[in-house]
Amino acid sequence: MGPSIQEELETAVFQISQEKRLPEAASRTDRGVHAEGQIVQFTLEKEFSPFSLRQALNAHLPVQIRVLEAELIDPAFHVTLDAKQKEYHYNLCLGPVQHPFYRLYSWHFPRFLDLQKMEKAAQDLLGTHDFSALANEKEENPICTLKEIRFLTLPEERLQMQLLGDRFLYKMVRNLVGTLVYIGCGKLPETIIPSLLAQKLRKEAGMTAPAHGLCLHRVFYDKLVIPSSRKVKK
Amino acid sequence: MGPSIQEELETAVFQISQEKRLPEAASRTDRGVHAEGQIVQFTLEKEFSPFSLRQALNAHLPVQIRVLEAELIDPAFHVTLDAKQKEYHYNLCLGPVQHPFYRLYSWHFPRFLDLQKMEKAAQDLLGTHDFSALANEKEENPICTLKEIRFLTLPEERLQMQLLGDRFLYKMVRNLVGTLVYIGCGKLPETIIPSLLAQKLRKEAGMTAPAHGLCLHRVFYDKLVIPSSRKVKK
Repeated sequence: MGPSIQEELETAVFQISQEKRLPEAASRTDRGVHAEGQIVQFTLEKEFSPFSLRQALNAHLPVQIRVLEAELIDPAFHVTLDAKQKEYHYNLCLGPVQHPFYRLYSWHFPRFLDLQKMEKAAQDLLGTHDFSALANEKEENPICTLKEIRFLTLPEERLQMQLLGDRFLYKMVRNLVGTLVYIGCGKLPETIIPSLLAQKLRKEAGMTAPAHGLCLHRVFYDKLVIPSSRKVKK
Repeated sequence: MGPSIQEELETAVFQISQEKRLPEAASRTDRGVHAEGQIVQFTLEKEFSPFSLRQALNAHLPVQIRVLEAELIDPAFHVTLDAKQKEYHYNLCLGPVQHPFYRLYSWHFPRFLDLQKMEKAAQDLLGTHDFSALANEKEENPICTLKEIRFLTLPEERLQMQLLGDRFLYKMVRNLVGTLVYIGCGKLPETIIPSLLAQKLRKEAGMTAPAHGLCLHRVFYDKLVIPSSRKVKK
């Protein structure tokens, strides 16, 4: 196991500033989970323009980690407390053989999935619920609001599940995906969600989907808007 | 430098059959070029069903290489001689910072590219020409027919160039992409293509684009149809 992304960032920040800082992230992701829209906050004594800070950090970070944007922010802004919504994407490869390009970023599940059943069951997850049945730890506040679950079919027999919510419990997305996949392949009944949420028993739900299929896509704030995908000028 | 894909396949074929075979590929790709639609042909004494051959080879190949389909073919079929068209994709990241997920599969070119100029110049490459100016070696037959060049802009400031032709000379796609990129960033005039092709001088063209941005997407045959992307059953 290599160092975490936070540790790598800490090292890079120290290398460019000689200041020991613990960068705080909008969302703590489990080991093995990807992030393309992580937001990180820290203060430095040494002055940098946002442009030169990005350049300097990218020069010291390993190639797997990149600072896409850097911004000077209001000292009152708090990266976790001010987060309003988060969007996660979960990637699956459903074909008999996984396309090698996607092997690091998607769960290979080479079985038939009934997407209609999965989409129907997903409707029962939307809204504000106690999500204890999909959490791996006892949580102080297990109430979350799930706003959207979208299913996107992609070439090469890929499937992307896009989840939008105000907050997510520890391993909740991976347990939710595992449960919907169990419904899709017939291991769990498609009507199970309401009773699952009511009973709050983790063991009644499906498996925890593998970490490497999950990606933190974007964190939403009221004030700070980070573009998730910029367009090519044409 | 690790072993080539051909060497890895040779090893896997030997491991499952104890037969020493040199699998012949539809298209020889340079070291570092990707392939998602390579077609490979070989004969074996030992009998396998196509399904079990695919399973057995994938069990022995490194994770970066996968057999997506296996088919029994007519002994008269020849993987290179019968190829009618090839399609290559070349991927670029144009933003100031390359998205880490694409680092292994795209050329990071963080400068403004004028796509209109590139598309206009690409028109002059279409059709049947002597492509010596875009080849890195003296070729016996430098005449190729380029049927299509498409430009696809993708999220995260990515650009994909899709090229369809009957045959391509050694390093021709990478030289062609490098030349169009030079036109797009103003290093070469947008009207250069006709005189470039007429003069047949490699040194007048643009740079050779890096290997890792290139991908052999598909090889087309009259009889054997290999699906390049299968759809999810929904």
